[in-house]
Amino acid sequence: MRTIFTAELSQLADDLVEMAEYVQAAIHRANTALEKKDLKLAQQVIADDVKLDDLENRVDERTILLIAQQQPVGLDLRTLVTSLRISAGLERMGDLAQHVAEAARRAYPESPIPASHRDVFKKMSEASNHTSDLVVDLIRGRDLNVAAQIVSDDDTLDELHEKAYSLLLAKGYKGDTQETLDVALLARFFERFGDHAVNVSRRIVYLVTGDLDGGRSSI
Amino acid sequence: MRTIFTAELSQLADDLVEMAEYVQAAIHRANTALEKKDLKLAQQVIADDVKLDDLENRVDERTILLIAQQQPVGLDLRTLVTSLRISAGLERMGDLAQHVAEAARRAYPESPIPASHRDVFKKMSEASNHTSDLVVDLIRGRDLNVAAQIVSDDDTLDELHEKAYSLLLAKGYKGDTQETLDVALLARFFERFGDHAVNVSRRIVYLVTGDLDGGRSSI
Repeated sequence: MRTIFTAELSQLADDLVEMAEYVQAAIHRANTALEKKDLKLAQQVIADDVKLDDLENRVDERTILLIAQQQPVGLDLRTLVTSLRISAGLERMGDLAQHVAEAARRAYPESPIPASHRDVFKKMSEASNHTSDLVVDLIRGRDLNVAAQIVSDDDTLDELHEKAYSLLLAKGYKGDTQETLDVALLARFFERFGDHAVNVSRRIVYLVTGDLDGGRSSI
Repeated sequence: MRTIFTAELSQLADDLVEMAEYVQAAIHRANTALEKKDLKLAQQVIADDVKLDDLENRVDERTILLIAQQQPVGLDLRTLVTSLRISAGLERMGDLAQHVAEAARRAYPESPIPASHRDVFKKMSEASNHTSDLVVDLIRGRDLNVAAQIVSDDDTLDELHEKAYSLLLAKGYKGDTQETLDVALLARFFERFGDHAVNVSRRIVYLVTGDLDGGRSSI
């Protein structure tokens, strides 16, 4: 029985890796759609989000079945319950990638990013792409150094979020209301993307070390 | 054993009611702080959010313990796993109430709501208060008619969110950038509050009927 259970747990871990790879593809594509004003790519990201929701439900169902059939205790049980939180966090990251793609689609054939904010958003795209790569690495490899890098990327995204807002509020800013709205919401999507990446990574660290960082993280 | 398990499940249901009541208090207070420009009340909402996070962790721990000790199957197991999703949704609703309070605090001693948007936000406050009341009722009573009312409130919040944005984009809108930002973000917080209430209510309906509405809801 134990061998079967190990195989099932491993399948569940594979599901989480698959979800993380979906998020990675979604945010990379959303960022490319944003930069290149690529409507087709934006629409693909939006259409693909359903697949991530389906994966989340698969993780739920697999977890419920595993608990029922195997009646795990201790670390195995903790792994299963934590997997549910991780899948929820990945699903939220996918939603945020979708929101970025929706902003690109809405503004098409223009860009939703005014010239004043090109540089900030270029850095946000880079940081969010990097974060999504790290989340895949972390879920695959459980290397705690990667978790620290995710926190560092989140700090970068927080700073860029602040910067985007302060540019809007600076004297001499000339954007119209639509531009202000696009910048405000897009900056927030990236900032939230980083937050959820940190929550996911804390859950992984919890699986490895048993420490939930004082219980202040939640998805 | 079964009697003890029933008592434990009942305790878990009480925890979820307590979380829903926290959310209810938080959004009612945040809305009052917003309307009355009440800094002290805003700060209380912000400080209290930690308690909701603690409650969520308590639900997690209780669920893990219950599964380990009782090794439930079937509906009992489904109830436990769904409880985790419900607690995550309630925690997110609490975060959004906190964000509303933060907007009130930031603008103090002014209001973050410009005169152009008073009416829309008055209705958003009413709808979100009402939604939070309904979520408490639904978790307490499991009456499916209440779930339908939550969906209806969410539709109202979506319409008001659209209205807030269209007022910003209307010709003749004279607000400055800070006002535009405040309106955009606040409207989004209320809109998301309604979305999470619907997700929570779908999970409750799932517990009662076994139907997850095609699997498209996720927290």
